[in-house]
Amino acid sequence: MAEPKRPEAGAPPLRQRAEKAPTALDLPQGDLSPDMRAYLAKCDEKIGFVPNVLAAYAHDDAKLSAFAAFYNGLMLAPSGLSKLEREMIAVVVSAANRCVYCVVAHGAAVRQMSGDPVLGDTLSVNWRAARLAPRHRAMLAFAEKVALASWTIEEPDREALREAGFSDVDIWDVAAVASFFAMSNRLASATDMRPNAQYHASARDMADS
Amino acid sequence: MAEPKRPEAGAPPLRQRAEKAPTALDLPQGDLSPDMRAYLAKCDEKIGFVPNVLAAYAHDDAKLSAFAAFYNGLMLAPSGLSKLEREMIAVVVSAANRCVYCVVAHGAAVRQMSGDPVLGDTLSVNWRAARLAPRHRAMLAFAEKVALASWTIEEPDREALREAGFSDVDIWDVAAVASFFAMSNRLASATDMRPNAQYHASARDMADS
Amino acid sequence: MAEPKRPEAGAPPLRQRAEKAPTALDLPQGDLSPDMRAYLAKCDEKIGFVPNVLAAYAHDDAKLSAFAAFYNGLMLAPSGLSKLEREMIAVVVSAANRCVYCVVAHGAAVRQMSGDPVLGDTLSVNWRAARLAPRHRAMLAFAEKVALASWTIEEPDREALREAGFSDVDIWDVAAVASFFAMSNRLASATDMRPNAQYHASARDMADS
Amino acid sequence: MAEPKRPEAGAPPLRQRAEKAPTALDLPQGDLSPDMRAYLAKCDEKIGFVPNVLAAYAHDDAKLSAFAAFYNGLMLAPSGLSKLEREMIAVVVSAANRCVYCVVAHGAAVRQMSGDPVLGDTLSVNWRAARLAPRHRAMLAFAEKVALASWTIEEPDREALREAGFSDVDIWDVAAVASFFAMSNRLASATDMRPNAQYHASARDMADS
Amino acid sequence: MAEPKRPEAGAPPLRQRAEKAPTALDLPQGDLSPDMRAYLAKCDEKIGFVPNVLAAYAHDDAKLSAFAAFYNGLMLAPSGLSKLEREMIAVVVSAANRCVYCVVAHGAAVRQMSGDPVLGDTLSVNWRAARLAPRHRAMLAFAEKVALASWTIEEPDREALREAGFSDVDIWDVAAVASFFAMSNRLASATDMRPNAQYHASARDMADS
Amino acid sequence: MAEPKRPEAGAPPLRQRAEKAPTALDLPQGDLSPDMRAYLAKCDEKIGFVPNVLAAYAHDDAKLSAFAAFYNGLMLAPSGLSKLEREMIAVVVSAANRCVYCVVAHGAAVRQMSGDPVLGDTLSVNWRAARLAPRHRAMLAFAEKVALASWTIEEPDREALREAGFSDVDIWDVAAVASFFAMSNRLASATDMRPNAQYHASARDMADS
Repeated sequence: MAEPKRPEAGAPPLRQRAEKAPTALDLPQGDLSPDMRAYLAKCDEKIGFVPNVLAAYAHDDAKLSAFAAFYNGLMLAPSGLSKLEREMIAVVVSAANRCVYCVVAHGAAVRQMSGDPVLGDTLSVNWRAARLAPRHRAMLAFAEKVALASWTIEEPDREALREAGFSDVDIWDVAAVASFFAMSNRLASATDMRPNAQYHASARDMADS
Repeated sequence: MAEPKRPEAGAPPLRQRAEKAPTALDLPQGDLSPDMRAYLAKCDEKIGFVPNVLAAYAHDDAKLSAFAAFYNGLMLAPSGLSKLEREMIAVVVSAANRCVYCVVAHGAAVRQMSGDPVLGDTLSVNWRAARLAPRHRAMLAFAEKVALASWTIEEPDREALREAGFSDVDIWDVAAVASFFAMSNRLASATDMRPNAQYHASARDMADS
Repeated sequence: MAEPKRPEAGAPPLRQRAEKAPTALDLPQGDLSPDMRAYLAKCDEKIGFVPNVLAAYAHDDAKLSAFAAFYNGLMLAPSGLSKLEREMIAVVVSAANRCVYCVVAHGAAVRQMSGDPVLGDTLSVNWRAARLAPRHRAMLAFAEKVALASWTIEEPDREALREAGFSDVDIWDVAAVASFFAMSNRLASATDMRPNAQYHASARDMADS
Repeated sequence: MAEPKRPEAGAPPLRQRAEKAPTALDLPQGDLSPDMRAYLAKCDEKIGFVPNVLAAYAHDDAKLSAFAAFYNGLMLAPSGLSKLEREMIAVVVSAANRCVYCVVAHGAAVRQMSGDPVLGDTLSVNWRAARLAPRHRAMLAFAEKVALASWTIEEPDREALREAGFSDVDIWDVAAVASFFAMSNRLASATDMRPNAQYHASARDMADS
Repeated sequence: MAEPKRPEAGAPPLRQRAEKAPTALDLPQGDLSPDMRAYLAKCDEKIGFVPNVLAAYAHDDAKLSAFAAFYNGLMLAPSGLSKLEREMIAVVVSAANRCVYCVVAHGAAVRQMSGDPVLGDTLSVNWRAARLAPRHRAMLAFAEKVALASWTIEEPDREALREAGFSDVDIWDVAAVASFFAMSNRLASATDMRPNAQYHASARDMADS
Repeated sequence: MAEPKRPEAGAPPLRQRAEKAPTALDLPQGDLSPDMRAYLAKCDEKIGFVPNVLAAYAHDDAKLSAFAAFYNGLMLAPSGLSKLEREMIAVVVSAANRCVYCVVAHGAAVRQMSGDPVLGDTLSVNWRAARLAPRHRAMLAFAEKVALASWTIEEPDREALREAGFSDVDIWDVAAVASFFAMSNRLASATDMRPNAQYHASARDMADS
């Protein structure tokens, strides 16, 4: 890929972003509906802060609302995949795309949900080095192929998931979660979205490991 | 990437998909709400068929609804990018990901909206070979970088879009559309989603070119 | 790969190519022999235009003549591969190399020879998504490997073609056609060769699909 | 790329090639015309052996004849590029494609024509490490881009050659030679063509270096 | 790259490694010299455990001794690069190579030496997203190029380091540290070396961030 | 990877290296210990010159000493791998990294130790084209994977070496030698280290081939 053009000597300096801005873009404050204001307030109450991805989408009420519905339907609704499994996919895809925001935020989620800090750290670098059940190796191998070479996926790839116990609806969900983070990783990197500081220290207690 | 495992001699044959199935997955018929039934009927009335991506999502009413809202907010809502520009990004990202469904469907949209079949065909293979205004070269170069190497994007990349006349909200939209197709391409390839036959012949009249 | 150097502000503008020029190079009109003049006239009579690849080679009579003999011996002479099979290889290799000229010209040939517009469009993006006989999957998998990673080809790759019914002379022909388009794609891209407009609309009638 | 399939235990062993066969394919002896018989005899007389690439093409008189005309027109006919320059391009492209046959044969040619064994050895591994005139750095950078990422070539790439003193016809020749070896490398690798033993020791005398 | 061969059904199961083994290899206990025994004891006393890389090398006294001297000369001896800078290079190269052992161990070192957990976590995923001084951006860009495309390094790359204030001896050290981790990452991955559990929780206190 | 920045018109010219300098860096003459002076003298006496890699390390006595011990322990000490096998790995890894210094120096070693110039030349370009015993194919396939995709190595890769007759200590040695050249290749390329002229002509006598 091409190297980003650097400012020439004598050119005006690159724009400095505000310290607390969720992204490098200067986005207006959106005119949020009561529903979306309540949604952000609930996030803040529940986890202690508003994730920067939501703060970024908040420049447009309709887009925030659609994103939240789409995300929650994928990651939180009932599925043949547990919530932890969906977070494991999120981390592996985000590591493949080297997205700091998503590796940090979803690595914290894996640490919290699994109670296993080593698992989160290992998936953040290279899932092949993790101690995984066969179901999870199959799931993460498929997810990584979705991330890195989706056009080479063929029927035997799907069949390998069926052999590991996934139904066809589950396969849709594995593909959908992996694909969703292919999107989120890119939007975060393209806008230089930064993880909230709270994610870094979350669930680091090694007592169980 | 690893080669998909081929069935061994003597193994049962791979599953045959139904001729008309939108994907290679055996997905149940979802219990659709009146809203979603009306939405699909309207598509059918307007363009003569239900796009297979919607037929595939229709296995789950909530997911179909969230996808439609998310997609329409991105591709059809008011934006500093024209609808044609958003379709141009869709084609370029989909070509980078070699996604047959999306290249065929959105290549048809570029042909229709631009009245220029050559533009659609050229973007489907290599946007660098197209005759483009500087604004569109900048836009498509950024979109392809989002598709192929998002982790290398830095401030000078965004600055190049500002120099080509894009506002910061426009940059969000370029990144968001490019990222969206990073998702859709993968979900389509991972499930072997096939384009409806009607897309192939759409807007092929060369009278204007 | 390195980014092409852009003209600096204040630099003279890049050369504008003539509207009808077959490439971006300013090539002299060659002094053609009667044989070559007759050959070009016959092309024009038969398909209604002189393909730009021949117009480009026409700057040098000896090179045009050698190219035509080499091309025709490969693509039109008797072979264990049908002419359609050779065109399928041409499209798949050209798609791997993202060559607009060759994908457009040979995609049109596949549509014409097969009477199947969907096949041409699918091979132009990703042959894995096409409905293919085992013979053709083996042939196109080998051709793509020739295009993308020829140094990794070993005896088992050739053996897979033999198992699919290809003789050793046929294997030579598969390799020779795939290799030929590795050449033509590069010469076309390096000189910005443009497809004649007539190719885009050719054989788009969907009546049979 | 996919791994070649290995024979299973119990499978019949892979075919053993004849010691002297030019390729791994079992090609018939072609019925050569007097012209082609004379051409091969002249090669043998001049350099002491028939290069295996010609021995391989000799399974088909018409193909051998077209190949020889095409090759000689490109590599030996008058051109703005010296014969050594064309051989330098051959080595650099062949190194990029890891083609043993062509690196060995054309590395020997560079050693012979330049009288500089170090130049041939360096170009065979990494041309950037060679001590080159600016004209040759520009030429080889363009040739390597043709070999590795032809679809990213744009007008500024051609302009860089013009600035280094190449005419537009010369640029065609640089592109044509680089593209030709993109073809020959692949045909040689795909058929496991082996260099004649004589190439290895040719022009190794270091007296001048 | 080729997919590792999976055990066939009916094949004996893959070897299970011992829970505490530093690698997946069954290495003998080396006959250590008093010096090396003292060295390992001192490590254990100072940081509370023997790093698994040393435990692995301990199968051979001479190799452990040479490795320790080589490593300590590079990472701990006086240099124009601070120890933190050398650890930053270690993390960036190890992230590029997706080496779990080295990212975890040296990410902990960056957190400890810098007192900035965010810096360690960010470098572990994508250094471009970190807030860095120009000196460190230049240093890490060079280090990543050493890791990923060393054959493309030319004089202007070294010149960029000189412009950022590095002496020629410092440039040697940047190259030497980056190259060292290119080695260590590969040896760790190739032997499935696991990080000691203590690294994961080290220096995670966010009080200063 | 990014293109090295070229000097702008009007900028001072790039530094010219001294004709005999082992690298492009201006390194001071180190204050060598009697041991190291004796070591270099012994090299000179034995092979007729001091290899440039040692001349480069000689800017720092401690680093030269540690490097020599580490190198000699790996390449010359007793091992389940013969010295020729270790040199074969060196050439294959160095070819993958396109390192001129190491391909030339270790290609000469393979020619000398094996008495087979063809083997050295073939491994220098593409080991798959060499005529190898199964033990050596397994060894070189593993070494190349260490060089190019170490993070994808899993237990079945190690098991393939065990099946080819390598003990676990031997596997460590294969991995250690391959990893060592991953380091040396990068340090040589990053500093533009040049091979001593003597290597090019070494062991080119074809009498045995």
